[in-house]
Amino acid sequence: MGYNISKKIDGSFDDAIKKVTEELKKQGFGIISEIDLRSKFKEKLNVDFRNYKILGACNPALAYEAIQQEDKIGTMLPCNILVQEKEPNKVEVSAINPLESMSAVNNINLQTIAAEVSKKLNAVMDRL
Amino acid sequence: MGYNISKKIDGSFDDAIKKVTEELKKQGFGIISEIDLRSKFKEKLNVDFRNYKILGACNPALAYEAIQQEDKIGTMLPCNILVQEKEPNKVEVSAINPLESMSAVNNINLQTIAAEVSKKLNAVMDRL
Repeated sequence: MGYNISKKIDGSFDDAIKKVTEELKKQGFGIISEIDLRSKFKEKLNVDFRNYKILGACNPALAYEAIQQEDKIGTMLPCNILVQEKEPNKVEVSAINPLESMSAVNNINLQTIAAEVSKKLNAVMDRL
Repeated sequence: MGYNISKKIDGSFDDAIKKVTEELKKQGFGIISEIDLRSKFKEKLNVDFRNYKILGACNPALAYEAIQQEDKIGTMLPCNILVQEKEPNKVEVSAINPLESMSAVNNINLQTIAAEVSKKLNAVMDRL
């Protein structure tokens, strides 16, 4: 498994965002940031880009535990779920795989938490 | 160098946020997300925590270039700068080191961009 877990789904971009948000909630994750790169690229670079949103998902209890183990892990939080519309009504959802993305952090206690988060994000992806 | 570049500075938490924001701007980065984990932990877990903010920094031109090279790199964007107040008026700033955090991505073209971002974030840290 690589640095992300991805899945292609049919349907509208907005429906995909809604579905991802609901499934994250069931696993104890809230969305604490939402970045719309399509509008950012239009505003800053004046380029037209496909729908491309980064949802920052956070499970507060697990984030708190992670910071106890590794106080600078905030540089890798929240867990991002990327939603992009590659063709009309063809949406790809990609969740970060914290087991890989946090592998540069040498902390065995953190890896245990990353494994738990990874399991929950896999459950989200399975249900899309 | 590890997964982050850190520096301890004296002064207030709010002044540190302001200074980091200014220096990021000089290197072409805007803050596109701001996560206040102190208030999130209070709200969701009812625990008191130190000041701990995650600033999401984005250089639109470099982000755009990165996505051309690696369409799922949004799972690792924006570049986070963590600001935490470890003791009153003792603030630690930690910037993600994209060369390390993106090392799980096997893409040589991306590494070139990550090196450029890393250089700019180092310049920010040097001036704090």
